[in-house]
Amino acid sequence: MVFGDEFNKLSDDFVDRRQWRYDPPESLTSVGMTYARRLELTSPSNPFHLERGGVLETLVVEYEAYGELSSDGCNAILVTHALSGDAHAAGWDGEARRRDRQWRLRRPGWWDGMIGPGKPLDTNRFFIICANVIGSCYGTTGPASINPATGKPYGLRFPEVTVGDWVCMEAMLLDRLGIDQLYAVCGGSLGGQQALEWALRFPDRVGKCLVLASGPKLPTQGVGFNAVGRHAILHDPYFRGGDYYGHAEQPRHGLAVARMLAHITYQSGKQMDSRFGRKLQEESLKKGWYEVEYAVESYLNHQGRAFVERFDANSYLYMTKAMDHYDAAGAWGDGDLWQACKRVKAEMLVATFSTDWLYPPEESSLFVKALLANRIPVTYVKIDSIYGHDAFLLEVERVGRMLRAFLLSPMPSRRTRVPESGGGL
Amino acid sequence: MVFGDEFNKLSDDFVDRRQWRYDPPESLTSVGMTYARRLELTSPSNPFHLERGGVLETLVVEYEAYGELSSDGCNAILVTHALSGDAHAAGWDGEARRRDRQWRLRRPGWWDGMIGPGKPLDTNRFFIICANVIGSCYGTTGPASINPATGKPYGLRFPEVTVGDWVCMEAMLLDRLGIDQLYAVCGGSLGGQQALEWALRFPDRVGKCLVLASGPKLPTQGVGFNAVGRHAILHDPYFRGGDYYGHAEQPRHGLAVARMLAHITYQSGKQMDSRFGRKLQEESLKKGWYEVEYAVESYLNHQGRAFVERFDANSYLYMTKAMDHYDAAGAWGDGDLWQACKRVKAEMLVATFSTDWLYPPEESSLFVKALLANRIPVTYVKIDSIYGHDAFLLEVERVGRMLRAFLLSPMPSRRTRVPESGGGL
Repeated sequence: MVFGDEFNKLSDDFVDRRQWRYDPPESLTSVGMTYARRLELTSPSNPFHLERGGVLETLVVEYEAYGELSSDGCNAILVTHALSGDAHAAGWDGEARRRDRQWRLRRPGWWDGMIGPGKPLDTNRFFIICANVIGSCYGTTGPASINPATGKPYGLRFPEVTVGDWVCMEAMLLDRLGIDQLYAVCGGSLGGQQALEWALRFPDRVGKCLVLASGPKLPTQGVGFNAVGRHAILHDPYFRGGDYYGHAEQPRHGLAVARMLAHITYQSGKQMDSRFGRKLQEESLKKGWYEVEYAVESYLNHQGRAFVERFDANSYLYMTKAMDHYDAAGAWGDGDLWQACKRVKAEMLVATFSTDWLYPPEESSLFVKALLANRIPVTYVKIDSIYGHDAFLLEVERVGRMLRAFLLSPMPSRRTRVPESGGGL
Repeated sequence: MVFGDEFNKLSDDFVDRRQWRYDPPESLTSVGMTYARRLELTSPSNPFHLERGGVLETLVVEYEAYGELSSDGCNAILVTHALSGDAHAAGWDGEARRRDRQWRLRRPGWWDGMIGPGKPLDTNRFFIICANVIGSCYGTTGPASINPATGKPYGLRFPEVTVGDWVCMEAMLLDRLGIDQLYAVCGGSLGGQQALEWALRFPDRVGKCLVLASGPKLPTQGVGFNAVGRHAILHDPYFRGGDYYGHAEQPRHGLAVARMLAHITYQSGKQMDSRFGRKLQEESLKKGWYEVEYAVESYLNHQGRAFVERFDANSYLYMTKAMDHYDAAGAWGDGDLWQACKRVKAEMLVATFSTDWLYPPEESSLFVKALLANRIPVTYVKIDSIYGHDAFLLEVERVGRMLRAFLLSPMPSRRTRVPESGGGL
């Protein structure tokens, strides 16, 4: 096992650990060891039709769930993951060793600070589900899956996916789990786009909708960064038009560059100044003047290298495209956000972070105004944080307090009662 | 000739032409056709010693000059160029056709809106010099130059250069031109670092120092973006350790990616939203779903492609490194900016742009405070602009007014008179 003392040695040096709450699996506030579940949502007579025209004859979804579904089925919260996330939102991956995902042994689920007994998404009270999205590389059918028509991995022949497709898939999964109504849907960044799409596409199925560090569409600057990342991948000579599976050489450098530049957009300038400034990297690693010199370069290189070990270049293309395409106003209001927001029946939480420049607070205030103009109950929070876009992952304390308060507030409009705590803490 | 009507057809579609003042060479406010001058600054007994330890036995500088040096030699202004700039600051390159630099036929010098008879840097009044920096690919000795020791291009064996080296080279050039005192030194971005370094290194030679969209050091976020750009170049399989000259395959994709991402940092998010939003690229150019779809992607691709035609990947490495290394406080104040500013004797202009997030206005205000604390006469201007970092190039009207006013204000502290206009306008 790698917990306890061993954990400190193994854990990622680059993570500011004060910001993370690493609950070892034996802790009373951890959901413990988790095991992903897989479910086939399609049948030969009932394939999955995608928004942009494609069809998947086989769609397997990988998801995790924590806590117990109450007898009335009214305590379910769907947590939606972001670009590089997956279904493993909390606890410690019981299958990591078997699958040789080293990075998963080193840290718990991506929102472990939020989800667990007594935590803001309290598993004593709520039944939490998190599903991996279509096109990802973490278990749900994606470009690395075998195309039944050819017996080979799809690669770029995998159909184009959208945030809407993900939400439809999540709705099918909930149907299969017998969950009609969600107490809440909650996500940050690309996960926030999914949460919002839930409130728009299935207004009658969502009680509370929590949109963190996200909005009705990605600002153009973010689309530009995504485009540069894709460009780096598509022009990596080892990309081979997406058919690199099984080859010794992979489009590692293209994917690493995409991740490195995206990673800068997840942080604030202030944070980078205070954390790195011009701190030098250890001398021993520098070979030539043009090589890594500053700690910030070494950090970004590390981010690139680590990402390449755990992510698939094709998935990066599909998922960033879905992020770029998402446009709530276009899809539901003919370009008019005010019109689109008419559909919402959920109680909304829109949370932004002062230094998030990927989804800046100013953009979100337009969204909040559109909700208010439709008399939708909305709570708007702008959290003062140095952590930029990633604050929704890193500001555990403040985000946690906000989520707890919003989730436990009564919903007079829906007459849904707040689930009781099942016990424990 | 390509001017007049032809010009409109040839000119770059992507440039918002309302923002540019394209003076054809026959215009009364253009400096007309220009011809670069070259000067060897070294001799076998007198090589150029660089700050970081290298030596150049041969250093040839390419520069341009506009206007006439007055008999007392007191009307010289040195204009310093930015990362992708060169000595051709104004007018139309008379050698462009001969050298087959197509892009130079399409647009005049990079600051043509500022420099010319009657313009803010008025060539009827001032003698304007702009020199290409060491390590560049536009005429001054750089990594593509022949290494006299081997008879082959230097590549990465070219010595490391700094902003300080550039300023020393510029000082040598002025010595050779018989210019002891600069009326002013003026630059934006990396050129602003040079202007500031002039005021610190040669305080007695500078009357006025104009630092635009720049500062005592590049914030860490910019260092991070530069590092990602270099990473893309260094890991392009055609880079071959910098010895790609003469090969059919060049590190084009690495350099294009570096430029594309840098180009995003030169613009503001607001500008990208208002200019592009989700406008689609023309259908005909799209081959697969993963290819260029939005106008913003097409624009960035264009920027990447165009840059590769005109810039050298090795030069990009050298020049971004110089930009990252520049640290006025470290070099002149032992890390203390206040201490460093003690050296300044010039009248300072510090100009920032409201949406410049590469050199944000907040950073510059610390610099201005350090100058004020030393009782240095300083004018601080924050120009409200949507154009982000590139506003120093694009806000021709407002930047022009500011430069004119600052340059023509008397300098009681130095008892230097403002040069009279030589005639014309």
